[in-house]
Amino acid sequence: MTGTPPPLPIPDETARARLLAAVRFDTRGLVPAIAQQHDTGEVLMMAWMNAASLDETLATGRACYYSRSRGGLWRKGESSGQVQKVVDLRLDCDGDTLLLLVDQKGVACHTGRRNCFFLAPRDGELTEIAAPLVSPESLYGA
Amino acid sequence: MTGTPPPLPIPDETARARLLAAVRFDTRGLVPAIAQQHDTGEVLMMAWMNAASLDETLATGRACYYSRSRGGLWRKGESSGQVQKVVDLRLDCDGDTLLLLVDQKGVACHTGRRNCFFLAPRDGELTEIAAPLVSPESLYGA
Repeated sequence: MTGTPPPLPIPDETARARLLAAVRFDTRGLVPAIAQQHDTGEVLMMAWMNAASLDETLATGRACYYSRSRGGLWRKGESSGQVQKVVDLRLDCDGDTLLLLVDQKGVACHTGRRNCFFLAPRDGELTEIAAPLVSPESLYGA
Repeated sequence: MTGTPPPLPIPDETARARLLAAVRFDTRGLVPAIAQQHDTGEVLMMAWMNAASLDETLATGRACYYSRSRGGLWRKGESSGQVQKVVDLRLDCDGDTLLLLVDQKGVACHTGRRNCFFLAPRDGELTEIAAPLVSPESLYGA
């Protein structure tokens, strides 16, 4: 088999360092990362990455974010099993936002919904437009 | 004709105030807003909103962001003509990210590309994977 290699993972540390150098992290050292299901286009969630979590994501091809609440790396799916394989990645025109094209196993949202964007204005009221597919308890234990 | 009214615009100021109260703006008073083409799922751009720009977006059904560089409201398309009609809107599970479902006229990116996410790793190098559809000069004048 020949052909184009997949964009990720990127085992070469020097190549990863070049990519990281193109990202404009904010004053906190973070960059927003949008996760989109690669084949359906569904926007699943937005989270944050620091340089270490982006480097790990590039190296492994699995989404690793930075948890602002916990102050550390957040390997998506580590506790819930709902991992994100990163199929491809985009950096935007001014280098300060990432778009991850992922293959989401199960559900992306900690509420048990497929995606986090389930609140919408309906008749001027913020309304839940999607129900959980699984219970949060089944994701994180009782 | 009867039927469900469209989610936007929301003329009722009190209803808009209730929606705004559900948004968790950051310490700068801003919230990230992802713009997605409503029918194709293409993620076009990410920008920021403050309360005033979100209120205007809800009131008019046209995307209005907050420009961090200019420090003021940024009515998308005001200079370029590339306006975004906001068809629907989502708030995420923890209230700190917006997803706008838009109908983008022309191109979203100031480089003349349809979307801002045109840089991708190819063979470990950050590579432009989309060409401009129009020249930036034609959008903003020479």
